[in-house]
Amino acid sequence: MSIEQFSPKGRLADTGEGITGDELQLAARNHGMPLEALRYDLTPPGLHYVLVHYDIPLTNAATWQLTVDGCVEQPLSFGLTSLRAMGRKTVRVTLECAGNGRATLHPRPISQPWLTEAVGTAEWTGVPLADLLQAAGVREDAVDVVFTGADHGVERMVEQDYQRGLTVAEALDSGAIVAWEMNGMPLPPQHGYPLRLVVPGWYGMASVKWLRSIELIDHEFDGFQNSVAYRLRTEAGEPGVAVTRIEPRALLAPPGHPDFMSRHRFVPSGQVTLQGRAWSGWAPIDRVEISTDAGLTWHDAKLDATSNEDLAWRAFSYDWQATPGEHVLTCRAHDESGRTQPIEAPWNRGGFANNSAQRLTVLVT
Amino acid sequence: MSIEQFSPKGRLADTGEGITGDELQLAARNHGMPLEALRYDLTPPGLHYVLVHYDIPLTNAATWQLTVDGCVEQPLSFGLTSLRAMGRKTVRVTLECAGNGRATLHPRPISQPWLTEAVGTAEWTGVPLADLLQAAGVREDAVDVVFTGADHGVERMVEQDYQRGLTVAEALDSGAIVAWEMNGMPLPPQHGYPLRLVVPGWYGMASVKWLRSIELIDHEFDGFQNSVAYRLRTEAGEPGVAVTRIEPRALLAPPGHPDFMSRHRFVPSGQVTLQGRAWSGWAPIDRVEISTDAGLTWHDAKLDATSNEDLAWRAFSYDWQATPGEHVLTCRAHDESGRTQPIEAPWNRGGFANNSAQRLTVLVT
Repeated sequence: MSIEQFSPKGRLADTGEGITGDELQLAARNHGMPLEALRYDLTPPGLHYVLVHYDIPLTNAATWQLTVDGCVEQPLSFGLTSLRAMGRKTVRVTLECAGNGRATLHPRPISQPWLTEAVGTAEWTGVPLADLLQAAGVREDAVDVVFTGADHGVERMVEQDYQRGLTVAEALDSGAIVAWEMNGMPLPPQHGYPLRLVVPGWYGMASVKWLRSIELIDHEFDGFQNSVAYRLRTEAGEPGVAVTRIEPRALLAPPGHPDFMSRHRFVPSGQVTLQGRAWSGWAPIDRVEISTDAGLTWHDAKLDATSNEDLAWRAFSYDWQATPGEHVLTCRAHDESGRTQPIEAPWNRGGFANNSAQRLTVLVT
Repeated sequence: MSIEQFSPKGRLADTGEGITGDELQLAARNHGMPLEALRYDLTPPGLHYVLVHYDIPLTNAATWQLTVDGCVEQPLSFGLTSLRAMGRKTVRVTLECAGNGRATLHPRPISQPWLTEAVGTAEWTGVPLADLLQAAGVREDAVDVVFTGADHGVERMVEQDYQRGLTVAEALDSGAIVAWEMNGMPLPPQHGYPLRLVVPGWYGMASVKWLRSIELIDHEFDGFQNSVAYRLRTEAGEPGVAVTRIEPRALLAPPGHPDFMSRHRFVPSGQVTLQGRAWSGWAPIDRVEISTDAGLTWHDAKLDATSNEDLAWRAFSYDWQATPGEHVLTCRAHDESGRTQPIEAPWNRGGFANNSAQRLTVLVT
C-alpha cells in the first residue's frame, strides 16, 4: 500500500456510486443533529453536530496554555485561570458545517457525507477575541491571525495541526470569542475542551477547537485549511473562492412519526403546525417561505420574535391543512442582506455551502 | 409511492452495492463512539453511541408517569419524585448496539450501518427494577415483563411504540435499573430523558428509553422488537434465535495520528503502547490477545485491575516495538464463561452480534 492509499486525494463519486467505506467511517464518527432537535432553542451538546478532522486530542485543562504572539507589542500566554480573568461573555451562535448538504450533490464530492443536519445552536462563554488581541497590542505589520488547535493529522498527504486564519479585521470585528463553556458547562471533549474559538456567522471550520495558539503574521495565511481545503471550486486545481460565512438555510422539524429505515413520515390528516428554524451568517432572517406541494406554491411562515442574538437561528411555524396522500414539504430562508436560499444551490467540487432547499416526503393518512 | 416504499422490508445489499441513501440517513442521525474515546473510563454523553429507532420524543419530566401494572398484586404509578423515593443505585455499564459491526458483513444487511464503534460506558443511577417489581408484587401468573417507551414509529410496515420484553426471571435477576441519571447528570434527551431502563450485559435494544410503562403479562411477549426484529437468522422467514447478551469484543484505540479521509494511521517507529478496552455481557473479561501482524502471531495483553463492575469494559495494553512499514493490528477478547471472540463471526441476516475482530491498518514511519 502506498502513501497515497493512506491519504487519498479529493475526488468525485462516479455516477451511481454508493456511499463509500471511507465516507461511512466519517459518518459513523461525526454526527449531525437529528432534525427533531430543531425543537430546542439551545441544542443539547450530544445532539449538536460534530465534525472532527483528525482525532479528538487528549487535553489537560490544568496545564493548558494559550499563546498570543507574532506581530504583537507584547506576546502573552494564558493558563485557563488567567484567561478567565480577562473577561466573560456569552454569545448564542448557530454553527453549521461548511460541508452540510454535500452528500445530496450530483456528482457527490467524496468527504464527510452530510445530508442536511450538520447544524446546532449553543451558548458559548469565554473572552472576546478582540480583548485578547488588544491586550497583546496588534502591530501595524500584522495582516492575518492564525489559530492552531491541538488536533493533528494528515489530509491529502499534508501532515498538519489543524489551523485556520482570519484577517486582522475579521478577527477584531467578527464578535469571535475564545470559549471554555458550552451551554454553561465545560466544553465537551468533541467540542474543543478545554478551549476553542467561536466565530459567529462563519461556517464551523473557522471555529478552531482545542485552541493552543493565536499567532499574528505579516502576510496572508496560506495554510492548508484556508488555501487548499475550504475553497469553492468548479474545476480541480483552480484557486477558487474562500468559504466564509453561512449561507441562509431553513429546516423543518419533520412532522408526524417516521419509518425507521426510510425516515419517511406519516402524518395524520387535519391541521398540522409545521415548525422549523432558519439562519444565515450574513444577516438576520427576515422571511421564511414554506411549500407543501414540492415548491409549486409558497406561503410565508410566521416568524418568532427576534432575539438580540441576530446570527442564531430563528424559529418559524406554518399551519398546514394536511389532506390524505403524499406531499413534499420544502422551505426557504431570506435574510436582511437580501440573500435568498435557492431551491438548488450551485454545485462545487468540495461540496461546500450547499444550502439547497430541504425536501421532506410525508404520507398523510 | 406505495406504503411499502415508505416502510421498506429488510433486505441484503447486492454484491458491490455501496452504502445506500437510507443507510446514510441513519448514519447521519445516530452515531458511534470515536475510537480515541476508548481512553475514557466513562464515555462522555455526547461520545457514547446513540441509536434511536424513531424520533427522540418530546418529554416533560414534571408530568412524567411510569406505570407498573398487569399481573401484579398492586398496580403502581410513579412520578419522578415518587420514583426517586424508592431507592438509588449507580451501576457502571458498557452498552453496545446489537447491530455493531453490521456494515462489515458480506453480504451487508441494510439497516443502521455500524462499523465497530457502537459502544460506550456510563454510570447509570436509578432504582433497581427488581425493587419496583417487588413493590408491585409479582403474581404467580406473570410470565414476561413488557417495557414501553414514548418513541413511536413504523418499522417494516408495523406501526408501534418501541417495546421490549424480558422474562420475569431476567427482569428480577439481571441487575437492571430504571435510571434518571447518566454520569451524575439528568439523562440527555437522546439517552432517554427523563427515564430509561438499563439492562447490564444485554445489547442496547433491551434498555428501553423514555420508559413510561412496565406491564407484566401472563404469556410470552410477541412484540415486533422481540419476535421479528432482534433475531439471529440465516434465512428470511425462519423464527431465528433471540439476540440477548453482548458477545465478547476487544477494541484498540487507534495509535498515532489519522488521515482525515481514509482514517488510516501514521505511527512513529519505536515503542508504542497499544491501549484498548474489552467487554462481554456474559462474564468478566479474563484475557485479551493482540496481534501486530494481521493475526499471524498473538500476544497476551496486560489487563488492568478488575473493577467491581464486572460487565463494564476492562482496559488492556501491550508494548509494541513498531518497525517501519505497513502493519495490521488486531485483538480478541476472552471471558470467564469460556467465550472467545472469533476472528470472523458467523453471518446472520439482521447483522446482529457481529463481534469479528477489529482490523486496524497503520503505517509506521
